[in-house]
Amino acid sequence: MIIVMKQGAGKEELKKVTQRIVELGYHPHVIHGETRNVIGAVGDERGKTVLQSLETLPGVESVVPILKPYKLASSEVSRVRTVVDVGRGVKVGGKKLVVMAGPCAVENEEQIVMTARAVKEAGATVLRGGAFKPRTSPYSFQGLEEDGLKLLDTAREETGLAIVTEVVNPKDAELVGRYADILQVGARNVQNFALLKVLGQLGKPVLLKRGMSTTIQEFLMSAEYILSEGNRQVILCERGIRTFETATRNTLDISAVPVLKEQTHLPVIVDPSHATGHASLVPSMSYAAVAAGCDGLIVEVHPDPEKAASDGPQSLRPDDFMRMMTKLKEFAKVAEREL
Amino acid sequence: MIIVMKQGAGKEELKKVTQRIVELGYHPHVIHGETRNVIGAVGDERGKTVLQSLETLPGVESVVPILKPYKLASSEVSRVRTVVDVGRGVKVGGKKLVVMAGPCAVENEEQIVMTARAVKEAGATVLRGGAFKPRTSPYSFQGLEEDGLKLLDTAREETGLAIVTEVVNPKDAELVGRYADILQVGARNVQNFALLKVLGQLGKPVLLKRGMSTTIQEFLMSAEYILSEGNRQVILCERGIRTFETATRNTLDISAVPVLKEQTHLPVIVDPSHATGHASLVPSMSYAAVAAGCDGLIVEVHPDPEKAASDGPQSLRPDDFMRMMTKLKEFAKVAEREL
Amino acid sequence: MIIVMKQGAGKEELKKVTQRIVELGYHPHVIHGETRNVIGAVGDERGKTVLQSLETLPGVESVVPILKPYKLASSEVSRVRTVVDVGRGVKVGGKKLVVMAGPCAVENEEQIVMTARAVKEAGATVLRGGAFKPRTSPYSFQGLEEDGLKLLDTAREETGLAIVTEVVNPKDAELVGRYADILQVGARNVQNFALLKVLGQLGKPVLLKRGMSTTIQEFLMSAEYILSEGNRQVILCERGIRTFETATRNTLDISAVPVLKEQTHLPVIVDPSHATGHASLVPSMSYAAVAAGCDGLIVEVHPDPEKAASDGPQSLRPDDFMRMMTKLKEFAKVAEREL
Amino acid sequence: MIIVMKQGAGKEELKKVTQRIVELGYHPHVIHGETRNVIGAVGDERGKTVLQSLETLPGVESVVPILKPYKLASSEVSRVRTVVDVGRGVKVGGKKLVVMAGPCAVENEEQIVMTARAVKEAGATVLRGGAFKPRTSPYSFQGLEEDGLKLLDTAREETGLAIVTEVVNPKDAELVGRYADILQVGARNVQNFALLKVLGQLGKPVLLKRGMSTTIQEFLMSAEYILSEGNRQVILCERGIRTFETATRNTLDISAVPVLKEQTHLPVIVDPSHATGHASLVPSMSYAAVAAGCDGLIVEVHPDPEKAASDGPQSLRPDDFMRMMTKLKEFAKVAEREL
Repeated sequence: MIIVMKQGAGKEELKKVTQRIVELGYHPHVIHGETRNVIGAVGDERGKTVLQSLETLPGVESVVPILKPYKLASSEVSRVRTVVDVGRGVKVGGKKLVVMAGPCAVENEEQIVMTARAVKEAGATVLRGGAFKPRTSPYSFQGLEEDGLKLLDTAREETGLAIVTEVVNPKDAELVGRYADILQVGARNVQNFALLKVLGQLGKPVLLKRGMSTTIQEFLMSAEYILSEGNRQVILCERGIRTFETATRNTLDISAVPVLKEQTHLPVIVDPSHATGHASLVPSMSYAAVAAGCDGLIVEVHPDPEKAASDGPQSLRPDDFMRMMTKLKEFAKVAEREL
Repeated sequence: MIIVMKQGAGKEELKKVTQRIVELGYHPHVIHGETRNVIGAVGDERGKTVLQSLETLPGVESVVPILKPYKLASSEVSRVRTVVDVGRGVKVGGKKLVVMAGPCAVENEEQIVMTARAVKEAGATVLRGGAFKPRTSPYSFQGLEEDGLKLLDTAREETGLAIVTEVVNPKDAELVGRYADILQVGARNVQNFALLKVLGQLGKPVLLKRGMSTTIQEFLMSAEYILSEGNRQVILCERGIRTFETATRNTLDISAVPVLKEQTHLPVIVDPSHATGHASLVPSMSYAAVAAGCDGLIVEVHPDPEKAASDGPQSLRPDDFMRMMTKLKEFAKVAEREL
Repeated sequence: MIIVMKQGAGKEELKKVTQRIVELGYHPHVIHGETRNVIGAVGDERGKTVLQSLETLPGVESVVPILKPYKLASSEVSRVRTVVDVGRGVKVGGKKLVVMAGPCAVENEEQIVMTARAVKEAGATVLRGGAFKPRTSPYSFQGLEEDGLKLLDTAREETGLAIVTEVVNPKDAELVGRYADILQVGARNVQNFALLKVLGQLGKPVLLKRGMSTTIQEFLMSAEYILSEGNRQVILCERGIRTFETATRNTLDISAVPVLKEQTHLPVIVDPSHATGHASLVPSMSYAAVAAGCDGLIVEVHPDPEKAASDGPQSLRPDDFMRMMTKLKEFAKVAEREL
Repeated sequence: MIIVMKQGAGKEELKKVTQRIVELGYHPHVIHGETRNVIGAVGDERGKTVLQSLETLPGVESVVPILKPYKLASSEVSRVRTVVDVGRGVKVGGKKLVVMAGPCAVENEEQIVMTARAVKEAGATVLRGGAFKPRTSPYSFQGLEEDGLKLLDTAREETGLAIVTEVVNPKDAELVGRYADILQVGARNVQNFALLKVLGQLGKPVLLKRGMSTTIQEFLMSAEYILSEGNRQVILCERGIRTFETATRNTLDISAVPVLKEQTHLPVIVDPSHATGHASLVPSMSYAAVAAGCDGLIVEVHPDPEKAASDGPQSLRPDDFMRMMTKLKEFAKVAEREL
């Protein structure tokens, strides 16, 4: 950590800061500059936000962290890329791209089984579908809950696809874990630390979505919560961030893919459906995500989008999804991946 | 809801959309424009996001909601301003401004009792202090949990101040509710709907903080979750939003105060400490918040900020808080409020 | 335009609003809703922001525009895609992707000619290089001005590449136009309407960069300024928007590519160098941009980035650029484009 | 500047970086950390962005600036607060708050003279009104140009108010300067460096508006452009920044007031009209701005907002402005200012 002193701060103030650095267990290292002094505090600062409080001492202008605050998620700590083994032959983070597809919400058996068959035929290996739905409005459809999980199970039996579905309440984690192959943490829960801890203890693969205003560093800190409880099976998902632009539902931060690939060993997938909010934009954003180097996609597909209980406008019809997958295979090949 | 048709959309497409509007239980009303047609769908659209799915029909360009999606939170529905009775003589939303003050986290008995006495002397009527802490890093201090709640109880007994403290896991709501006078939902949990529902059922006053990237409309929808479960005791708190600016920790959206006052009957308070992240900015932002018409403040005060377990840089020392309160009384008077 | 009346607004208020709509030359069309009335104002509203002022009349809650405000830039008005003929055999917007490459700033003859040769060999057809530099700091290198333009001319003579270079002051437009094949408007000048008008009159191809906080609609309005002066040779460039994320210099809004392709007939290129700010991210973002359907790229290349007068960290070395172009050709082919 | 080396960077890499630091004229100072090394580069780094290019050297992870990049604008360089003497007895930055008021655009003599009289009576000392209008749409009213300036002159003769009006093209600066007491740089031109330089040379008082996505540091760098040309008469104006929130036109960053007061000696005023976009929010935001410590306000007032050529919805009627000014005087007094 670097402590920047104010211009004109005196010797006494400098001394108090260096003393406090020593008290906190770090080694102070003063650099006398032309217009002000700075102090390097040498020691492992990760997770030690207490150093930040030096900012309140007289003569201190600011405290600048140098190290990234995460450890287990860091590509510096583990240089081997993590491959998450989901079961049913699906591995996320290897040479093969993983496409997860299905409706926003599980509505009934016909809908989910029909969609499962269609997305499998197109090349998806994981079925998505919400049973517990975090909806902005209390008056919107909240999901079929355990009945929805059972329908997902039926679709899995019919098709052999693995299942990813969301969990919103820590108390439901075990229940959802009995049905799901991957437990999804939604964007709104990315800093629901109570939920992250429970999922860290559960030990099943977790799909962690980036929040609408989560920095990449905070995103990796949320992953760190799961990892630090002993669960290394974490898949990161970029799904668009909130910006001033309203032409799309969110702004897909596609540069997050290579940035995450530099900073962490965890696999990274992309959700072009929630990012854009419009079905017509999903294929081009899927191609872009694969070209940028992601490990997979999670895409909304619904047999009848205009009657969907939620997120109709961003759902692809099965035939559009099929066409997109055909083109995607070509892009994957150039990206030296398989699909 | 207004459905905007594409330029060049034909009669057949228009007919299908109007049919679907009727099927969904609304009355279509076509306006033939110069370059395109628009359809008004008459009926109560609040919570009926299903109309949005019309966007997927051929010939439709966009679907524009007209009504605000919340009901119980709306100042149109209830024109009487809500006054939340916290107990211990504290009412939020009346003529008297309510100042809640205390440390970010409860650390030990001496710290919390000393702070409680100091803030009471300065004019605060509610003591804040975290026992369950949602921290970005799993390696940061996570709070004293129930022990912290007991220390808050001790401070309350010593001073008569009411207590506000955060709850982060739905399963802890009852426990926290046994100790707290007001249960706080933190910014990161503003769309933790499982938590909001439990608090709606618990029936105790709730302090709901706006999330870092929550629009005012979404904020009121989160309040609606609590209200729709039967709990009308909701206090809203603006605490800064995430923007590109890094000179402050967040950007205090002070215009949210009059906007909320127009749109809802619920009381609105402001947190200048988390918004700015720097103690030196807290007094001026407190004055501004009162001048803008808020119903109260929640401010971090710590007897020894440079040794605080968390959020030291934004905590006021007791004597600075005292000075600020003196000035604040003058501003309150001009704003036709008491303090 | 849709005028939404307040709940409880009376007949008299409704009457006054409809009268004013008629006075302004539009046809009012009232829809009586369940909880409030809305009025459709039929007529060409584009550019007529005067309707917005109805918001100040008693009983009006809000005024919602329906039509996009641009005409000449709209894909509804001109369904034929514009191909900008830059000269020297370069056409932007056709089947062939156009790659513009070169240093941030022209520094000296050796630097610019060497770079020009290298980027030409790799497949670029346009040389970029700044002679007039808009720098955030008055103490930073401001460019060689006309001497820089002459050096660009030399490099063009040596290689046959077309030249794109920035103009920052309306009074220099003619001078820059004498040397440049394409005049660039930088992100900071996207709403410098005095400059846009002059370039509209000059008639040479213009490369218009999106501003850091320019919405897509505002971006097209800026293009409309140039088009409405009679110059149809406009190339749009997405170059990253300002968000809360700091891992990259800006956030590349790659979904702007398909959105612009839907809304306008103008060609769209992408600048991955300014968007990311880091050379290591440029190749993956270039692949993504081509996969998303852009018409070309503008990329910073410098023979010696660590000695660059500006923007060193985001400049590719010539050999890295060569490698990227090789891969890019494969992606272009899958995107059904040539390079 | 602090250069952070990568974990695992070797001695050879460290040596090359320190050599390059010496070549650039700085003194390297290596701190050997537990997991990586950092180097302090001692020397005046302001305006020397060339150090940033060290980021491209092998083994370097990032380059972190320590000093603020502006000099003349800094409160460290000049500890005496600047008071801008506008003439006509108006001084901005002293004990007396300055209120500038008037219509968005000058429309005709009756409108501007009537408004001038009304705002003078209410206590304003400067008349605002646009003659050259930077409008988002080329089809919107662009202002009366020199005829507008003449009408402002008439209004000044009638009332004795000083005049502030915008200049958008460097070539018009001298013309506008002949009529105006203060030349305004609009938000869209905050980084129009060609304009800033001309205004720096002109020597008349400049009102510099913060751009919609300008950081406080960039804002001060724009002021530095004017100051570095020899003109010290700069007034800063916070007018709202662009965020995700759409309830207001922009988000008024009121904390920018105390932040600027800490970082610069220049006076700071606030524009609540453009910030909020709604007349009903202007009074509360004006009170808040004064409570936060600003040196003045610039407010839109129009005798007939529903007929205004531009910005009607955010314009106060003269009687509303009068009421606001009465209350504002009380807030000013508590803030230890006069009005």
